[in-house]
Amino acid sequence: MNPDICRERENATFNAESLTYILDGGPEKTRRRREIESLVVNDPDFQHEDLNFLSRSERYEAAVKKSAQMILKLREYGISDPEEIYFYKSVVHRGRSEPLDLHLGMFLPTLLNQATSEQQDRFFMPAWNLEIIGTYAQTEMGHGTHIRALETTSTYDPSTQEFVLNSPTVTSIKWWPGGLGKTANHAIVLAQLYTQGKCHGLHAFIVQTRCMKTHMPLPGVVVGDIGPKFGFDEVDNGFLKLENVRIPRTNMLMKYAQVQPDGTYVKPPSDKLTYGTMVFIRSMIVGESSRALSKACTIAIRYSAVRHQSEIRPGEPEPQILDYQTQQYKLFPLLATAYAFRFVGQYMSQTYHRITGDINQGDFSELPELHALSAGLKAFTTWVASAGIEVCRMACGGHGYSRCSSLPDIYVTFTPTCTYEGENTVMMLQTARYLVKSYRQASEGQRLSGIVSYLNESQSRVQPQPVSARPTVTNINDLASLVEAYKLRAAKLVELAAKSLQGEMQRSKSPEDAWNNTSIDLVRASDAHCHYVVVKLFTAKLSEVKDTAIHSVLSTLALLYALHGVSIHSGDFLQAGLLTVPQLSQISQRLKGLLSELRPNAVALVDAFDYRDEMLNSSLGRYDGNVYEHMFEWARKSPLNRTEVHESYHKYLKPLQSKL
Amino acid sequence: MNPDICRERENATFNAESLTYILDGGPEKTRRRREIESLVVNDPDFQHEDLNFLSRSERYEAAVKKSAQMILKLREYGISDPEEIYFYKSVVHRGRSEPLDLHLGMFLPTLLNQATSEQQDRFFMPAWNLEIIGTYAQTEMGHGTHIRALETTSTYDPSTQEFVLNSPTVTSIKWWPGGLGKTANHAIVLAQLYTQGKCHGLHAFIVQTRCMKTHMPLPGVVVGDIGPKFGFDEVDNGFLKLENVRIPRTNMLMKYAQVQPDGTYVKPPSDKLTYGTMVFIRSMIVGESSRALSKACTIAIRYSAVRHQSEIRPGEPEPQILDYQTQQYKLFPLLATAYAFRFVGQYMSQTYHRITGDINQGDFSELPELHALSAGLKAFTTWVASAGIEVCRMACGGHGYSRCSSLPDIYVTFTPTCTYEGENTVMMLQTARYLVKSYRQASEGQRLSGIVSYLNESQSRVQPQPVSARPTVTNINDLASLVEAYKLRAAKLVELAAKSLQGEMQRSKSPEDAWNNTSIDLVRASDAHCHYVVVKLFTAKLSEVKDTAIHSVLSTLALLYALHGVSIHSGDFLQAGLLTVPQLSQISQRLKGLLSELRPNAVALVDAFDYRDEMLNSSLGRYDGNVYEHMFEWARKSPLNRTEVHESYHKYLKPLQSKL
Repeated sequence: MNPDICRERENATFNAESLTYILDGGPEKTRRRREIESLVVNDPDFQHEDLNFLSRSERYEAAVKKSAQMILKLREYGISDPEEIYFYKSVVHRGRSEPLDLHLGMFLPTLLNQATSEQQDRFFMPAWNLEIIGTYAQTEMGHGTHIRALETTSTYDPSTQEFVLNSPTVTSIKWWPGGLGKTANHAIVLAQLYTQGKCHGLHAFIVQTRCMKTHMPLPGVVVGDIGPKFGFDEVDNGFLKLENVRIPRTNMLMKYAQVQPDGTYVKPPSDKLTYGTMVFIRSMIVGESSRALSKACTIAIRYSAVRHQSEIRPGEPEPQILDYQTQQYKLFPLLATAYAFRFVGQYMSQTYHRITGDINQGDFSELPELHALSAGLKAFTTWVASAGIEVCRMACGGHGYSRCSSLPDIYVTFTPTCTYEGENTVMMLQTARYLVKSYRQASEGQRLSGIVSYLNESQSRVQPQPVSARPTVTNINDLASLVEAYKLRAAKLVELAAKSLQGEMQRSKSPEDAWNNTSIDLVRASDAHCHYVVVKLFTAKLSEVKDTAIHSVLSTLALLYALHGVSIHSGDFLQAGLLTVPQLSQISQRLKGLLSELRPNAVALVDAFDYRDEMLNSSLGRYDGNVYEHMFEWARKSPLNRTEVHESYHKYLKPLQSKL
Repeated sequence: MNPDICRERENATFNAESLTYILDGGPEKTRRRREIESLVVNDPDFQHEDLNFLSRSERYEAAVKKSAQMILKLREYGISDPEEIYFYKSVVHRGRSEPLDLHLGMFLPTLLNQATSEQQDRFFMPAWNLEIIGTYAQTEMGHGTHIRALETTSTYDPSTQEFVLNSPTVTSIKWWPGGLGKTANHAIVLAQLYTQGKCHGLHAFIVQTRCMKTHMPLPGVVVGDIGPKFGFDEVDNGFLKLENVRIPRTNMLMKYAQVQPDGTYVKPPSDKLTYGTMVFIRSMIVGESSRALSKACTIAIRYSAVRHQSEIRPGEPEPQILDYQTQQYKLFPLLATAYAFRFVGQYMSQTYHRITGDINQGDFSELPELHALSAGLKAFTTWVASAGIEVCRMACGGHGYSRCSSLPDIYVTFTPTCTYEGENTVMMLQTARYLVKSYRQASEGQRLSGIVSYLNESQSRVQPQPVSARPTVTNINDLASLVEAYKLRAAKLVELAAKSLQGEMQRSKSPEDAWNNTSIDLVRASDAHCHYVVVKLFTAKLSEVKDTAIHSVLSTLALLYALHGVSIHSGDFLQAGLLTVPQLSQISQRLKGLLSELRPNAVALVDAFDYRDEMLNSSLGRYDGNVYEHMFEWARKSPLNRTEVHESYHKYLKPLQSKL
């Protein structure tokens, strides 16, 4: 064990293990999570070479092998609780996506939710036993988030009682679905349903893509891998071009909408049913933001405790780089953010589960707010985490750029969350739509409840007064007062956006043009709203923490999170009259103080995330701090070192020497 | 040609070709650049498969092959002007680094500058003819930017008149030098020189690492590749561990410092000689920031002109995504930044060449300012460009994540500039040191000249007055007034940092602790200084532009650049009393107006960067706009599609099905 990192742990003012329990939701949950992790990590069937040393084809193959093993072992161990399956799977693939993700996460659940019982009989058990390997083919080359405009067609032919599926344009080729390229033999295809000469919009169809015996593509099916990406090397994201592919009428998922044998279309009873799933997935992504950022912080902070560089005082030994104020200023606000997002993720998941019962009873009253919140928070947290991972990487200097740090891998695995499940800017605008609507309701005298209730107050509280005339309400040392300031900032920005929109309405050709011409303000308002929610939830979490030492360090983190946000957006707070100019200097001093307070606890705070070395797979982020030895060992095993002399020497360099 | 992108070009208000001439420095330079590009692009010897489809070993091999060809062809064509060699090389390797970079860019120049004539006789021609392939081994596992602390030792043994080189610790292993791993057979090794029992600090030694006949590592030399990285797949960044490796005394580079046969050490006459090279390289990086960002902007803006998505007005066709205000707000400030950095790069390079003559005459008077400026601007521009490339990538939605967009490649190739040639935060602090020193000189009544002369005024102009009492000086529609505002902001932040430092001096144990405890403020001051310089140089450039249409569009870009910066840092400007709260809303309105003004010229503005399709290698950024057809074609060629059925199906999936 590296002595520096030992000393860090000795100096912590709290017990990291107890904090881990809080993060997991109790000691029993921690125990079980570790038990599952050990099952995988100690299993010789899951051992393989470092993925960084493999070609993409080899990485795909290794992932297929592990996924196959995983299916067998889950059944062998009888692990069936979804959360436990999630743990197991994330250890097997170290948090990466894998070829069977959409089979397990979309194909099977969609069958359960949208297939008739006859269809379940036909498809579910074969899919459960992986004879049918499915994927979910929605996104096309030309359309992602805006799904209404998808172009794939499914035209009903009553003469044969079949649907005929087509990709009528290049842009209509299905593009991106995971597992579609090489793994799946079936796909649930989203297509525009045509029957009796009329289009009824998007519906889901089960299409067999490959032969069950030979795995060769079926006639009319052009299918393959979309090629290398920034990351996701394990996944065969695929394309699918359909050329007059016929499927039986009974392959349309018909639990809700139906096409009768003669071609008569029967509408579904409600369209809110898929709404809940979106909310659920976006809430999960908020949790992912925290996980990805906390991994990056673990690596960067442990490395900064071990790395010595340059000098603060001449003649003395080189300090740990964690002692540099600039390094603390890069990393500690991100550490605070990782904690904040963890608690927000917990809140989202709890709220979702709380109202799921209501949704199943047909009570959708709380769903719009949660839907709006999950959209905005998905965007807010993924943007911040994505940028934050890169700050962590660069805070490790050159070594962060090596794949042995694992930071490049964490980044490329995480950054697509900014785009998938709803592109972030579109998500921010969805939240804005809800905020503006709520603002208008409040203006019209309606009493709002829930998280937007602050807009009730905005009519009276946020007045356009000159800055100097406003009383200063914010106590920069008090979290409750800061929550209030974030709330009033959000109220102010929602008001500004709503008024700006109103102004545009008078100038623009249409309400839609007005919306577009206000969209910068609208995104800003959503951002402020989400920021308020995060500060509020982080603060609220503190009251649940009984351990006084942990309460103290988490309070420091929360204050750092809140004040750092104020200093980054100081213009907003000054503009809204929530801060005075002299307070800015106080904040800047206070921030430095908080960095110093956190310094002794930094390593323990990342230890509490409790990532095993096998999960981090990072030479820089090792628990024992033996960074350099491990880097050297790793490098010597890398493919270019398999021979002392690379063949290109004989092929190109030696012949060249004789020509010059 | 895609009709959307044609229409964009027709609607532009200026001639893109004329703007290209301005960017290149005249039509003759454009002509010659294009001529050189054609030489490479049309040369069958440089054709190869898409690098994205190759393994790392294959990419390294392809690069070695091209580099070897390049050396032959440069001689064949008689291209010897450094700028023309740079053009040629950047087309051959499409802007990527390559295995011979350090041989050409460091080994040969260092021989020229620091070798005695005897050494030049021995080493230069063999190196010129690539019998000797060299690299420059400075960075070690444990030390990068802080080179004084490098640990490799070179101990003189007078009995044999040899130096004995050693890597005494794990951290002393040379790590990162390009070409060191597999390509080079010699290295200039930076090591602590010990003679007659005394350490004389870092000196450069020529060490042979591999056998000239077999290319096998020599005894005592442990050399290899450091393993896969985020990017730089073509380069064998290497490690080198030296175990009692003996070299003749005459292999120390002795043009300046010397060790005589008896071991007597002779000091070099001056230590400022390497200073100029650093300034030069950092100035070049400023230009690289512009190039990388302008490539990313070209791809994202062309794609946004071709991509249609969602709806603004119901019932109408889907708009080009470039019509969304949020998309413009992401991309146009970055476009303005790419132009700004281009002009800053030109200024840096001109200034460097102007004062090189003075430097050669021993007149170093202008060097400190340029040194400070080049450090800060290197950090400022690389940080902004690095983050900006990712904004461009994400602005392309999912497809930006595919390697066919080329955006992942641009990012991973560029982002190391934030770390190498001086870690960015360290660079910012170097500039801050100069600023604080200048501020003190001004306080003591010295009259400053050059770019920091604004600090002369700061004593009288920037007063701590309440915001409301200050006259508002900034006219937000006037560039000259905005330059003044940036200047006063910089003055204010330098003053704040200097005073904060002074305050810390009274509290801290040492001046060094005080410096560390102020470093957040110091970086902020440097950042504001660099931002001022960029706005100032961009504005200054406008007066050179005679073409009125181009002058107009560049003025709009410059105003956008300046106002966007103000709105991002509005807290600073409010704090310094340079803006009033009502002005913030005006700025926000004005920014939207500027986005609309730029909209019709966006495509022409990126066309003017004049990147050939072969240079961009991006399906999304193609000049003809035929994005989707090309993506499909590219995907079908990718390695996973070489067979219809991947072998992992037979190895893992099929056997699994029988077990379930």
